[in-house]
Amino acid sequence: MLIGASIFDLSTPVPVIDEAVVAANIARVQAYMDAHGISFRPHIKTHKLPFLADAQVEAGARGINCQKISEAEVFADAGFEDILITFNILGPEKIAPLQALNARTRLSVVADSSETVAGLAAAFSAEAPLTVLVECDTGGGRCGVQSPEAALALAQEIAAAPGLRFGGLMTYPKPNSAETVEAFLGGAVALLDAAGVECPVVSNGGTPSLFDAHLVPSATEHRAGTYIYNDRSLIRAGHCDASQCAMHVLASVVSRPTENRAVLDAGSKALTSDLLGFEDHGMIVGYPDARIVGLSEEHAVVDLSGSAKKPAIGEKVRIIPNHTCVVSNLFDNVVFHRDGAVTRVAPVAARGRVW
Amino acid sequence: MLIGASIFDLSTPVPVIDEAVVAANIARVQAYMDAHGISFRPHIKTHKLPFLADAQVEAGARGINCQKISEAEVFADAGFEDILITFNILGPEKIAPLQALNARTRLSVVADSSETVAGLAAAFSAEAPLTVLVECDTGGGRCGVQSPEAALALAQEIAAAPGLRFGGLMTYPKPNSAETVEAFLGGAVALLDAAGVECPVVSNGGTPSLFDAHLVPSATEHRAGTYIYNDRSLIRAGHCDASQCAMHVLASVVSRPTENRAVLDAGSKALTSDLLGFEDHGMIVGYPDARIVGLSEEHAVVDLSGSAKKPAIGEKVRIIPNHTCVVSNLFDNVVFHRDGAVTRVAPVAARGRVW
Repeated sequence: MLIGASIFDLSTPVPVIDEAVVAANIARVQAYMDAHGISFRPHIKTHKLPFLADAQVEAGARGINCQKISEAEVFADAGFEDILITFNILGPEKIAPLQALNARTRLSVVADSSETVAGLAAAFSAEAPLTVLVECDTGGGRCGVQSPEAALALAQEIAAAPGLRFGGLMTYPKPNSAETVEAFLGGAVALLDAAGVECPVVSNGGTPSLFDAHLVPSATEHRAGTYIYNDRSLIRAGHCDASQCAMHVLASVVSRPTENRAVLDAGSKALTSDLLGFEDHGMIVGYPDARIVGLSEEHAVVDLSGSAKKPAIGEKVRIIPNHTCVVSNLFDNVVFHRDGAVTRVAPVAARGRVW
Repeated sequence: MLIGASIFDLSTPVPVIDEAVVAANIARVQAYMDAHGISFRPHIKTHKLPFLADAQVEAGARGINCQKISEAEVFADAGFEDILITFNILGPEKIAPLQALNARTRLSVVADSSETVAGLAAAFSAEAPLTVLVECDTGGGRCGVQSPEAALALAQEIAAAPGLRFGGLMTYPKPNSAETVEAFLGGAVALLDAAGVECPVVSNGGTPSLFDAHLVPSATEHRAGTYIYNDRSLIRAGHCDASQCAMHVLASVVSRPTENRAVLDAGSKALTSDLLGFEDHGMIVGYPDARIVGLSEEHAVVDLSGSAKKPAIGEKVRIIPNHTCVVSNLFDNVVFHRDGAVTRVAPVAARGRVW
């Protein structure tokens, strides 16, 4: 019923996503990967929408990347077959769903410890083995084995388990660290090779330094999510400009209590409080000097003291969020448009899939 | 099927809520309000669950407080009749749902500008009038008229509209500011009285300084939400101690990549990135010296360098979140328990109700 309506007639707050920008972002990144012969595996965390993952695969992506079992279930239900879950999966509650998922998809997971490997090894058998990659901490400071030697040792534990297959190496690096990443991954590949352990995939990741993926020649695959929508953090990273940000959060000015204060109806329940190193909460399109200085759950407080242009009560404004992926997780539905005319209202199928 | 199970057998991450602590928190605050003769109107934003609002009303609360129309719809569907929406409602898209809600409940809303009042005045008629309170900025720095004189002027605009009824004054103050709040509200009440404008309700709010509510004698009503669960921010505010925090986020240690780093499976999709002035992301029960120094969407990075006790891979830990209300908004279901045994799995009925 909304199809064809102007996005500016929507009830706010609501994420509005430009289909043309999405298509251009998919094409741009896939073309880069194709040009460099890198397999591309989009992370679905940004959109959480099977129809967009379809578009990514149709453009040439090799498979998809999920972070949790419950996300992968949504995409398996939608027909996706090649799914990598980049998470250490632990605990008896997760084994049955993992087995069920492995029985109906080409599933891979990651591990960074003997504990994780032992848990998986006990749950899978040679009849329906599970593919496990070794997660490597190449400087990202999150999960991952700490050295190429440790990667080899864990790969050998995986390869020795009858119910597991060693699937290769995986890292989520910090941005602008191609040299360090290559040193780690290249070193691990050499050790695996010397030990006679076949390494089918070396999977690198991230959007901020995506166009440096070719500077990690050991990697055969790249994973990225945010590039499909882009956001303020990726403008800062030099990955895109504002015109390449597909998602805006449409909000209304609900109060102008003082000359230099505006209040919007988009708070942390619409934007999240992710700062990603910024001191304020997103960019308002058309108001470059307005600053979203505070968020409560349903309100954004905007400081207009540096902005000669002041929005009026009732005016609808568009916000480029600091971080787009987390916005997708807050809304049951997101709205797609072309040139401001609604084309689709999409239920966010994998929203809230947290385990 | 889960009823009676240990919370430690649940798939993580998941919010677990202690029913006994909830009951004690409800009783404690209602007893204070009763002792001081203050009408109490709980804000449903914290739990978003009709059965808990029922318990609050049964304990003596006068009605409920919602922030958005779509939240109020959930509670009207559940049979609640006295609902205050503390939000400036603007825009043609919101008028039809607001009219429908007003037709089936004793609804009140707030306004802080002539624009909001004019929009409401045009949409309601004397046959089914809408009650409107004037929102006052007593120092909170969000919405609200800026002076008692402005409150009087807006109250007169409301009273003059055939479709509106002036419902009183409302403020969401900053903590520890009773004297300033009383000066504003008392001043406005005196002006209304002198002008012959009846002021049925003066509604103050907030949990952090809840037990100072009696220090604002002009207020006839208090609104608060967070007190029902409590959280780390309210421990800091002196409102409660850790034993009075009903909600924990149960998480698993999924990685121990280094001696002093643990990684949990509860990231910003489970805890949100709300800092509320803290530098880290919640307290881990039993690990007072561990610090959650970073969150990504599905991971929490914990610095153990100050913690002699180090959790093991696979261990389940409980986190007292910085801010409990925002956690409720992330999960489709929350789990209630008594002494660690599951008593109820509750769909979060008003989760994601953002407009």
